[in-house]
Amino acid sequence: MVKYGFGVDIGGTTCKLGLFSLEGELLEKWEIPTDTADGGVRILSDVADAVEQKLKERQIPRDEVLGIGLDAPGAIGEDGVVSQAVNLGWRQYPARDVLSQRMNMKVRICNDANAAALGEQWKGGGAGCLDMVMVTLGTGVGGAVIAGGKVIGGAHGIAGEIGHMIVYAGETERCACGRYGCLEQYASASGLVRVTRCLLEKKNRRTILSDTPELSAKQIIDAAKRGDELALDTLEILGKTLGRALATTVVVIDPERFVIGGGVSKAGEILLEITKKYYVQEVLTEGRETEFALAMLGNDAGMYGSMRLLLE
Amino acid sequence: MVKYGFGVDIGGTTCKLGLFSLEGELLEKWEIPTDTADGGVRILSDVADAVEQKLKERQIPRDEVLGIGLDAPGAIGEDGVVSQAVNLGWRQYPARDVLSQRMNMKVRICNDANAAALGEQWKGGGAGCLDMVMVTLGTGVGGAVIAGGKVIGGAHGIAGEIGHMIVYAGETERCACGRYGCLEQYASASGLVRVTRCLLEKKNRRTILSDTPELSAKQIIDAAKRGDELALDTLEILGKTLGRALATTVVVIDPERFVIGGGVSKAGEILLEITKKYYVQEVLTEGRETEFALAMLGNDAGMYGSMRLLLE
Repeated sequence: MVKYGFGVDIGGTTCKLGLFSLEGELLEKWEIPTDTADGGVRILSDVADAVEQKLKERQIPRDEVLGIGLDAPGAIGEDGVVSQAVNLGWRQYPARDVLSQRMNMKVRICNDANAAALGEQWKGGGAGCLDMVMVTLGTGVGGAVIAGGKVIGGAHGIAGEIGHMIVYAGETERCACGRYGCLEQYASASGLVRVTRCLLEKKNRRTILSDTPELSAKQIIDAAKRGDELALDTLEILGKTLGRALATTVVVIDPERFVIGGGVSKAGEILLEITKKYYVQEVLTEGRETEFALAMLGNDAGMYGSMRLLLE
Repeated sequence: MVKYGFGVDIGGTTCKLGLFSLEGELLEKWEIPTDTADGGVRILSDVADAVEQKLKERQIPRDEVLGIGLDAPGAIGEDGVVSQAVNLGWRQYPARDVLSQRMNMKVRICNDANAAALGEQWKGGGAGCLDMVMVTLGTGVGGAVIAGGKVIGGAHGIAGEIGHMIVYAGETERCACGRYGCLEQYASASGLVRVTRCLLEKKNRRTILSDTPELSAKQIIDAAKRGDELALDTLEILGKTLGRALATTVVVIDPERFVIGGGVSKAGEILLEITKKYYVQEVLTEGRETEFALAMLGNDAGMYGSMRLLLE
């Protein structure tokens, strides 16, 4: 009888592996290094070895295993071919079939941001919710749209790219995408640092951040939690731009819930409060009741999502 | 053998009825008045009478009929209950079951804007396209999102309400929704008239529109087609705001194609050209290839979409 599945989150440095029950209980998790040498040709055989070793160690017969769900950082087609994953060295790489043939098992694969959203929707901040939008405030701002329990990929792979929604028409600094005023410029970890630096230049104000040579998003968030005014101003700008982006998102896709994750979301309730304040001011009346939640699975979200994908 | 179906578009003044083949060929269409008296209690029995009469007239046996697809202007639940349709007088009205019991046939019902989008996706400007966004530039600006061939309803019924996306932060006049700078204020029929009036006040310029006491969107569009500069300025503002709204839509849902319908879309190719010009300037690179098309079914779109819904 089938009892188990594996969810594997393939990153540029490590692969996170999870052994799951079919109900989505994470029974064990561990990591192996990602060997990106030679175009990443050994990554999946390393994953296969790790899975086989775990089966042996736990004396799990192969007919009790449903298969392996994978995610990878890159664009992936319906056919399981990774068209490009720069950090892994893969290009036009039929990852699904390679692993499936090696293991003689069902294998499913999707993009890492989409897997994280699926994971949160299954067992995290979006649990119980078929229509959600996930926003990941990390080094950049990523996102994913889930409608009816399924990730919307988009015709050009940019569905859910809310980080590149233009939220401020007056911006003079250029975003990495080449345009001006994208959400990512205010709400990502690097955006927080950028905004704080701007405020430090303009305002002659007491702040515990003024003598910080290597300013980080974590420092800014910690300072805000301790009541530092300038850090709080930075969070206001984050909340205002994120609130606006989500208010705009609502008239397109109207989700039941927004789930906010990534490193910056460690700011926690204060981030949700400020964002909701601006969101409610800007949103069309019917959208006021949309729920807000923090992501709950952290770095495990991709593993959960990969396992969820396997169950489809 | 089942060969036929009916698609019925229930409006506040008339009900448009269509007899379709299962392949979606419109074999015959006609209209009956919508009797909204007494809370609209006779609307569906009038529809039923009309359908029965047509079957008799064409000597179609009932076992050759799949059923009736309906749309109505209002919010409609998955259970086929119209929670409110102001123009019909319906409130918490189980329209699907009422007609199904009367006719002893399969009946399906959805909102009119969604039906129009489904119709266009099936047999109109969105044909061959599973992921599309429809924007209807009518008295107001409506819209609908179709992903994987299905209409996205949204958790609060406002998915696809792109008319209420805020596209201009500097607006001083209030939109009907109570906020400022919504797309509808520039791209609807009434928006065109409003913008033209503003331009007439500000600019002392020769225009064939200056002596028009009862300015209409049609007059403005006709003037633009004849090269009137002020009317062309109005269309530029329409194209700029619509292009911006669609560029924003792309980072949420990333459709394959935009389909533009409604009375204002009679401006035709000139409207598409101006909109695309601004769209390409503002959109994230990956979204530049998104297709643009005009709606093709006009007032028949709702009938087509209702018939399409019946086939699900």
